[in-house]
Amino acid sequence: MSGWIAIAGIGPGDETLITPEVTTALEAATDIVGYIPYVRRIAPRDGLTLHESDNRVELDRARHALSMAAEGKRVVVVSSGDPGVFAMASAVFEALEEGPEAWRALDIRVLPGITAMLAAAARAGAPLGHDFCAINLSDNLKPWALIEKRLRLAAEADFAMAFYNPRSKSRPEGFERTLEVLREVCAPERPILFARAVSTPEEALRVVPLGQATADMADMRTVVIVGSSTTRIIERVGAPLVYTPRSVPA
Amino acid sequence: MSGWIAIAGIGPGDETLITPEVTTALEAATDIVGYIPYVRRIAPRDGLTLHESDNRVELDRARHALSMAAEGKRVVVVSSGDPGVFAMASAVFEALEEGPEAWRALDIRVLPGITAMLAAAARAGAPLGHDFCAINLSDNLKPWALIEKRLRLAAEADFAMAFYNPRSKSRPEGFERTLEVLREVCAPERPILFARAVSTPEEALRVVPLGQATADMADMRTVVIVGSSTTRIIERVGAPLVYTPRSVPA
Repeated sequence: MSGWIAIAGIGPGDETLITPEVTTALEAATDIVGYIPYVRRIAPRDGLTLHESDNRVELDRARHALSMAAEGKRVVVVSSGDPGVFAMASAVFEALEEGPEAWRALDIRVLPGITAMLAAAARAGAPLGHDFCAINLSDNLKPWALIEKRLRLAAEADFAMAFYNPRSKSRPEGFERTLEVLREVCAPERPILFARAVSTPEEALRVVPLGQATADMADMRTVVIVGSSTTRIIERVGAPLVYTPRSVPA
Repeated sequence: MSGWIAIAGIGPGDETLITPEVTTALEAATDIVGYIPYVRRIAPRDGLTLHESDNRVELDRARHALSMAAEGKRVVVVSSGDPGVFAMASAVFEALEEGPEAWRALDIRVLPGITAMLAAAARAGAPLGHDFCAINLSDNLKPWALIEKRLRLAAEADFAMAFYNPRSKSRPEGFERTLEVLREVCAPERPILFARAVSTPEEALRVVPLGQATADMADMRTVVIVGSSTTRIIERVGAPLVYTPRSVPA
């Protein structure tokens, strides 16, 4: 049996941010599986079948990909950014663990990619240049109380923070609440980066102090990065640079 | 003036993990600046000057790179992994902020790369598939008390954790203490991944429960990933898979 499955990160949008490792896997694949807008980034060719599926059906998609690999197909599950950061890799392993024992013998690989927070941080400077955390603000799969607990502890630890899925039409109030929690713990000068659709034609960056941040600055295509207490802004002509120094004084 | 400076991530080691964006910058450069082993990964060619420097001289290296760009050279500062994660980007911005005003007008870009924790996570499965933090365990540039505070709060927040620079010959005791702190807060079954030199010929992965982890399992080329309380192990022939599910039950 020559089938395999690769869960591949296709980066935040720009083709030049896709690793050659992922490009090689895409060229060798017989089947591509993924959320509609990610599959549409893959060029069609003879011998390649594209399987688009909707959002919120990650487990079905993962089972479909695993079963095709078990049939001998060469399957790439495409994920935006890095597949291991709030993306498809965990869904595939959940399906693998619950699935037929034979699936565990499959040739299965995760191919890393440029995740949204690293692309956003690079565009703005180096806001994640010191200790940081990454939190998914969606409460679809975890209780909101846990998100709020993590926010408070992360602020107390003085981590820089990257927020994925800060806000969607179905969850308009969570990010508002996030800003309230941050304002209880952090000074109003704390820099916040709103980075939308980085490396795509719709890219838009905005840096504001926490005191001026409003919930409508984020949407589902935005990654939000909150600086630590040591994060600095370098003013210059054009966009400012935001970075977190390597040192914390004793 | 046609000079520019790019701080570029060359990934964890394997050539197929370098983005085309970085490759293009390397091809256009007149000067490459970086820590000796990273500069040695760049192929020499006519018209390209390689500037190797030792560890712990990051600010000197950054000033040198900025001053060459100000003279009109096309300078790439090479960084292992991603330049914005415990790497050269923050050092360059520190030098920029302290340096001549004219440097602020330079064409300066950060080019993201595959950072060690993402490469390590991909190799093992998806241990960073849910909320996580990244902590540099070196106390060269920050007090040890801050590291320990962050460890305790991160464990209380139930983040998965990635540790950079867990242990070096000059700091043999810090990682021992890290394991002690984790044992006070986490169950002995908590999975820990020791990922050494991922994507190089020296790559070695090991997954052990916290109760069996010892400090000598890490060295300066190791990234350590500690699972959250929900992280799971899938046993199979060959290496086990480690992943953190997307959901946390209420």
